[in-house]
Amino acid sequence: MRLFDPIQVNSMRLGNRIVLPAMVTRLSGEDGLVNQDIIDRYVRLAKGEPGLIVIEAMAIHGAKSGQLLRLGEDRFIDGHRELLRRMRAVSPSKIVPQIIHFLKIARSGWRQKVMDLAKDEIHLIVRQYGDAAERARRAGYDGVELHMAHAYTVSSFLSLRNLREDEYGGSLENRMRLMGEILVEVRRRTGNDFPMGVRFDAEECITDGYGLNDSAQIALRMAKLGADWISVSAGGKFEDALHKPGQAIYPYTGYSGDRCMPGRVYQDGYNLYLGAGIKEHLNRNGLSTPVVTTGKIRTAELAERILTSGQADLIGLARTLLADPDWPRKVRAGREDQVVRCISINVCKSLDENFRKVRCYLWPKGSLHAPESADTTPPTWPTSGAGLRVFEEPRGHVRLSWSAAVDSEGLYGYWIERSGEGGPWEIVSAVRADMHTTFQDSTAVAGTAYRYRIRAYDLAGNKSDPSNIAVIGLPMTASGAHP
Amino acid sequence: MRLFDPIQVNSMRLGNRIVLPAMVTRLSGEDGLVNQDIIDRYVRLAKGEPGLIVIEAMAIHGAKSGQLLRLGEDRFIDGHRELLRRMRAVSPSKIVPQIIHFLKIARSGWRQKVMDLAKDEIHLIVRQYGDAAERARRAGYDGVELHMAHAYTVSSFLSLRNLREDEYGGSLENRMRLMGEILVEVRRRTGNDFPMGVRFDAEECITDGYGLNDSAQIALRMAKLGADWISVSAGGKFEDALHKPGQAIYPYTGYSGDRCMPGRVYQDGYNLYLGAGIKEHLNRNGLSTPVVTTGKIRTAELAERILTSGQADLIGLARTLLADPDWPRKVRAGREDQVVRCISINVCKSLDENFRKVRCYLWPKGSLHAPESADTTPPTWPTSGAGLRVFEEPRGHVRLSWSAAVDSEGLYGYWIERSGEGGPWEIVSAVRADMHTTFQDSTAVAGTAYRYRIRAYDLAGNKSDPSNIAVIGLPMTASGAHP
Repeated sequence: MRLFDPIQVNSMRLGNRIVLPAMVTRLSGEDGLVNQDIIDRYVRLAKGEPGLIVIEAMAIHGAKSGQLLRLGEDRFIDGHRELLRRMRAVSPSKIVPQIIHFLKIARSGWRQKVMDLAKDEIHLIVRQYGDAAERARRAGYDGVELHMAHAYTVSSFLSLRNLREDEYGGSLENRMRLMGEILVEVRRRTGNDFPMGVRFDAEECITDGYGLNDSAQIALRMAKLGADWISVSAGGKFEDALHKPGQAIYPYTGYSGDRCMPGRVYQDGYNLYLGAGIKEHLNRNGLSTPVVTTGKIRTAELAERILTSGQADLIGLARTLLADPDWPRKVRAGREDQVVRCISINVCKSLDENFRKVRCYLWPKGSLHAPESADTTPPTWPTSGAGLRVFEEPRGHVRLSWSAAVDSEGLYGYWIERSGEGGPWEIVSAVRADMHTTFQDSTAVAGTAYRYRIRAYDLAGNKSDPSNIAVIGLPMTASGAHP
Repeated sequence: MRLFDPIQVNSMRLGNRIVLPAMVTRLSGEDGLVNQDIIDRYVRLAKGEPGLIVIEAMAIHGAKSGQLLRLGEDRFIDGHRELLRRMRAVSPSKIVPQIIHFLKIARSGWRQKVMDLAKDEIHLIVRQYGDAAERARRAGYDGVELHMAHAYTVSSFLSLRNLREDEYGGSLENRMRLMGEILVEVRRRTGNDFPMGVRFDAEECITDGYGLNDSAQIALRMAKLGADWISVSAGGKFEDALHKPGQAIYPYTGYSGDRCMPGRVYQDGYNLYLGAGIKEHLNRNGLSTPVVTTGKIRTAELAERILTSGQADLIGLARTLLADPDWPRKVRAGREDQVVRCISINVCKSLDENFRKVRCYLWPKGSLHAPESADTTPPTWPTSGAGLRVFEEPRGHVRLSWSAAVDSEGLYGYWIERSGEGGPWEIVSAVRADMHTTFQDSTAVAGTAYRYRIRAYDLAGNKSDPSNIAVIGLPMTASGAHP
């Protein structure tokens, strides 16, 4: 598989094409120090052996924030050295931090805008990016990723909503100025051999925001200024976020937030066209800077198709690796059927929004990290069978119920699989074994014969045999719908 | 070209694959009657000979609204007969009306929601769709298109934001119930041989709205209930619209409005994946209901590629045909270079928003409709030449200025063409001849050598020779940007 072809990125050789993009964990304290939870989380993720791990965004300045890693002073470096030591003991993954600057927000809903910044404040941001990148190098990181996406400072300068009237706003050239100054400063401070990537929005996904026509030019500029990879995101802006009274505004609550982390209503690979558009523009201009594409990529088949069709060079898997850090190793070993697959219900996002430690909904109750197991024995159904039953409920829902499976080491969950009109089996959702042996399907429609089956899985992802198949046909009345 | 292959749609044979989707004109009075402006507009559009013309949305009920055609009573029929007579005298295009039901909105920002409707009000909507469709048949239309898209009643029932707790809301099945009842009623009232199409959103483009996973199922239900074509749109919702104090809320002011009518920041064919996803799902389920795809399709090359790659069966061109109704005839005759091309700046949309008669920005000043001309002599530059000059302005802009061209019958406008780094010539924008002989380019960036040239065009779209080529190289400083 192309997915496991190594790739050279500046001085860094990635063992495969899988990237863990920066994902907030809320595991650090407000002190910004690397702590045991942070170490445990990243050691667990590292064991899956993605080619590149981007550690969650860490602040380059001293601004107040919630639980957030920091790299704004030298005293933070030691913690990162320890983090790297621990991760490298278990994994060949290359590791870079994502460094971020953000503007002030208040619980009142007020937020600082790029139009409010004096020039010396802008110049300070450039220096802070350089300082933090240089600290990343001293800490022993393999490179650094510059956060220029979503609702944060550099992205807000790149935005079409940047209405500054000086040389930092207005035209595309001026909107790119701060970004360019930072790229040049980071390169100057860290040297030509230090891998430097950028994450940015290829579309703002807000009204009066920019789209691919601008972002292709922005990416080209990044590449010309020496970016070693370009990681493509979308949305995640303040402009369409909902402000809940008394809370700081969370920039992933509007549609642009949905596009940043597409939920289950969206098709897999929604944002692929963005990475593809960026890559095409770079290549047309003679540059081959690797492009990382992201956004609800869950299966190896899709990841491989992206690479073979040339839509991107690297595959970013965030929620997919949160759900199962061992996805890369399992896929490489031909055991993708043991992957615990993200079901895109964004409980992780909701935890982040509420300043709670970010976990995956699928993890066993109380676990702070994904489970680990070397068990190879799958769960089994009781001797009386799975007893899967399916029946109609009011309001157009279909209800499933079944008997609990059993497992030698610990049952983890159940996959709900559905086939409509004799089509292929598809995973509709999953439920945790400690929560339910029932499921409500709200997307079944009349005039369709559905088959359902359940598979139990254990902590290692081993799957049971399928349950009995339960069939339901929802008749369609003359007027279309089911009565 | 596939674009000019005929296609049979129920009893209607379309001469080509080009559809003019319903576009509001604000040309009718508040009386809802067909008037001379309406006739003139559609006669002009018909002369271009698209395969299918969908007349703008007309109300099936008596609710107060602004300038809007109506089909809610028999007394409206005669006007439509006259409209059809006049259009058919000049064009072989098939003609259907789009019929719409909408809920109440107030200047205060209040709007009626689907959750507010009593069941008898819902049943009335079904009857009103049937009545209006039957009137469309009596008026002599070739079929009817049911508006189930954007911010309007049926779309709001289909929405994931429909939280009704009875059989008309909640599950996908229930959200589709009103739609199904209408399709069945319209078919019952108009007969099996009367072409019946549907326009709907394949994605709501709002947070907590539905995406392709639901809309594929919705389209399948439409097809099963006998829809003869499915016209795919996106967005245009109230939920993310901006409410301007004292004005009724306009559902195309948020991002979902941008996605409905993608402006110039978006790539051509942004919404193609939606039509393609719908078509794929229909075909996989053994149905071949023609799919109309829409959303910033401007060139014959793109339209043809959509058809040959199987992404859709019919190509919807709204703003493209507003800018130049003769696009179909010109393309068919191999004269696409004479097309007056939409530049996606959405002045038409802004006029609609402000209840003003909808025109194209490119049309000559004072014209209520697209110009017509049989002239074949292109404009020429003065003997002293076009004198195109290009220079830098503050704030990162590039300014062009040139001398006016001359034309025997009347100059129409200028195309601004740009080539970056020796790449192909691309049309950046257009300016009207009665307005300017200057242009400001705000997307030129440093580190690029640009060539610009200007072509003048006349009322028939005949183009002059290119002007002299003016070159500008914006140096890139060490820190990236142009100083």
